[in-house]
Amino acid sequence: MSTAWKSRYAQRTKDIKSSAIRELLKITQKPEIISFAGGLPAPDVFPLDRFQEACRRVLELNGHQALQYGATEGYEPLREMIARHIARYGIKAKAENVLITSGSQQALDLIGKLFINRGDRVLVEAPTYLGALQAFSVYGAEYISVRSDNDGLCTEQLEEPLRMGPKFMYVLPNFQNPGGTTLSEGRRHQLVLLADKYGIPIVEDDPYGQLRYEGEHLSPLVVIDRENLRRDNGYSIGNVIYLSTFSKTLAPGLRLGWIVAPPDVIAKFVQLKQGADLHTSTFTQVVAYEVARDNFLDEHVKLIRKVYRERRDAMLEALKKYCPSEVIWTHPQGGLFLWVTLPEGMDSKKLFQTALKENVAFVPGDSFYAPNNGFASEGNRHMRLNFSYVQPEQIREGIRRLAVAIKQQMHELQVVHA
Amino acid sequence: MSTAWKSRYAQRTKDIKSSAIRELLKITQKPEIISFAGGLPAPDVFPLDRFQEACRRVLELNGHQALQYGATEGYEPLREMIARHIARYGIKAKAENVLITSGSQQALDLIGKLFINRGDRVLVEAPTYLGALQAFSVYGAEYISVRSDNDGLCTEQLEEPLRMGPKFMYVLPNFQNPGGTTLSEGRRHQLVLLADKYGIPIVEDDPYGQLRYEGEHLSPLVVIDRENLRRDNGYSIGNVIYLSTFSKTLAPGLRLGWIVAPPDVIAKFVQLKQGADLHTSTFTQVVAYEVARDNFLDEHVKLIRKVYRERRDAMLEALKKYCPSEVIWTHPQGGLFLWVTLPEGMDSKKLFQTALKENVAFVPGDSFYAPNNGFASEGNRHMRLNFSYVQPEQIREGIRRLAVAIKQQMHELQVVHA
Repeated sequence: MSTAWKSRYAQRTKDIKSSAIRELLKITQKPEIISFAGGLPAPDVFPLDRFQEACRRVLELNGHQALQYGATEGYEPLREMIARHIARYGIKAKAENVLITSGSQQALDLIGKLFINRGDRVLVEAPTYLGALQAFSVYGAEYISVRSDNDGLCTEQLEEPLRMGPKFMYVLPNFQNPGGTTLSEGRRHQLVLLADKYGIPIVEDDPYGQLRYEGEHLSPLVVIDRENLRRDNGYSIGNVIYLSTFSKTLAPGLRLGWIVAPPDVIAKFVQLKQGADLHTSTFTQVVAYEVARDNFLDEHVKLIRKVYRERRDAMLEALKKYCPSEVIWTHPQGGLFLWVTLPEGMDSKKLFQTALKENVAFVPGDSFYAPNNGFASEGNRHMRLNFSYVQPEQIREGIRRLAVAIKQQMHELQVVHA
Repeated sequence: MSTAWKSRYAQRTKDIKSSAIRELLKITQKPEIISFAGGLPAPDVFPLDRFQEACRRVLELNGHQALQYGATEGYEPLREMIARHIARYGIKAKAENVLITSGSQQALDLIGKLFINRGDRVLVEAPTYLGALQAFSVYGAEYISVRSDNDGLCTEQLEEPLRMGPKFMYVLPNFQNPGGTTLSEGRRHQLVLLADKYGIPIVEDDPYGQLRYEGEHLSPLVVIDRENLRRDNGYSIGNVIYLSTFSKTLAPGLRLGWIVAPPDVIAKFVQLKQGADLHTSTFTQVVAYEVARDNFLDEHVKLIRKVYRERRDAMLEALKKYCPSEVIWTHPQGGLFLWVTLPEGMDSKKLFQTALKENVAFVPGDSFYAPNNGFASEGNRHMRLNFSYVQPEQIREGIRRLAVAIKQQMHELQVVHA
């Protein structure tokens, strides 16, 4: 049946396509498949008892507020808690610098809405988080991709791209999705200096920063921006907008993220958010506050680190044990993902099909590259593996299966080339 | 301090301004003020015990799913429940026709995103819901306003506006916000026929439909569209997209609304929603399902009707008792609002200031008219009064105070004219 709607879609809808990952995830949900494809936290670490107690208290003591409309900016005690929380990482902020968003994904959407005109360019890492590409593309963003290696964004390659005048840079400095890599201390300073030199601001996306399993914490860009450039302006953040979330530390089903920005930029985001969803669920905000308070969140993050470190190690060991020597991978110091590079000539999308037959799944690398930047074909040699969701035993078995698929594919390739 | 951000706002941000109501509400939150300005449900009817029990059960039996990422479409049992629920109003839908949104406001934002190119015209009622104007304007919508009277949108004035080729019509048929008026049976049929004749689809926004205090339920446009035009296409909805919400029946703090549309349109919305916030909070969806199930919601709505009818009646009686005969108002058969028309020459924005001194507040009418349509000055004679939030005793006192302000203003006007 044809309705009058179909012919009426706006121009911008031509720029969107359903995420390849989304389609993949449907295939990989069969119970016999060990899936490294998603980006899900381990449900076994959700603090269910604490949630029980929090819900009970909230509904008993504060139910009328928790179920009522709330301020677009967010629940004030939660904004204050976040401001205190990030202060420990050196980020000077007050509640007025914090906007609660419906997950970090909404923060990315609001950034696209506030800054991107059709045809504007955004500088992104190659590879980068595909949810950001989805959020920005609907506003007509085009991309300048700059290589990201084991030390993160290759800042020594930045000057020419910055001269092209991108609207902003979008960077994931910690345990990047998909690479699992971390921007080095030296490059952080260089990046902030270049942003200042060319007047190109930075969106710093930091969903995983707290999940560090080894090595030392590195300063967020938002802190370096203030300290190095002596932007000693009290609580105004300068050229860096900082994003984070409770999705990886508390629970993603709450859909709670936040933006840290100068108050005048927050005021603009608030106007846009009002039209987008009025405000984020009061109930999840009040419950999250009640769960996280009294330093519970910090204690809980220690548990998550322990569990995920074990899973990361299981994956690294299994890769070493089972994979042919031609295959290489990153060594993430934290986060949820690692990034595998296959031997030249191999195609991770073809490998995906072979792997499915072995009942193991991953995300082929090409999803993580912005379109039209010459990097997409490079993605074919890569795959992203998630190590947070599956238990260690299953990780070992899954990697064993994956290695079988890789060897089979390599064999076929040699036969073809012979 | 100046940052690099300010000069980088996108073109579309010039079309947005903070809602006047938002600013008003800040003023009217002082405890001594009786406020008819907001649109808040009465918190004393929130079913707190049922929420307690629902949260307890959800976390005990289904906590891992309720706190995890979920499908963009929404929680399947909730979608099915909504499909069953609206079937009673004659709306034939399956879960695949239902998308869960982060409140109805997100539905409006997604509609803007999916359909509106800069400069596209949207046909709206004068007056209309200002949240819709906010949502559409950011995508560059322009408006064709058509008068809405005591019987709703004046369909006999529609043909010429429809020839101007609006992208769609946006209509609130039941207990309209702000008018409190209901589209008559005859006009419903005429509207659907005209939509078909000119090929202009309809967005039917129905947040209050269940809150009817008198009179008979009238068919939703989405039902008439299918029945009258013999669009007997099973579960595909035709030229009407239907919106509703749990905000007025369960609790607005959940931020749960829904869109009912043909599956191909739902698929497009899903793509956009994925980039906007991935999905609506799993936790609030599962809790809402658990609260609403086993016909609890229907029983609960009966209680809400009883409480709100009493408040509406208190307001109608007080208006009759205290207001000068030159003042008139609508008689809402349901919903949360009524609409007052002041004598010619009076200005509801000036009255607002006088009323504040009497410690009573409302929303001046001009907020509810689309810009540049010749209706805005008409808004100056109107005000919107909410009767759901304040208790009957306070309603009577508030209206008494409001009448004092009105009389004072009328007196000043006569003095000036004399």
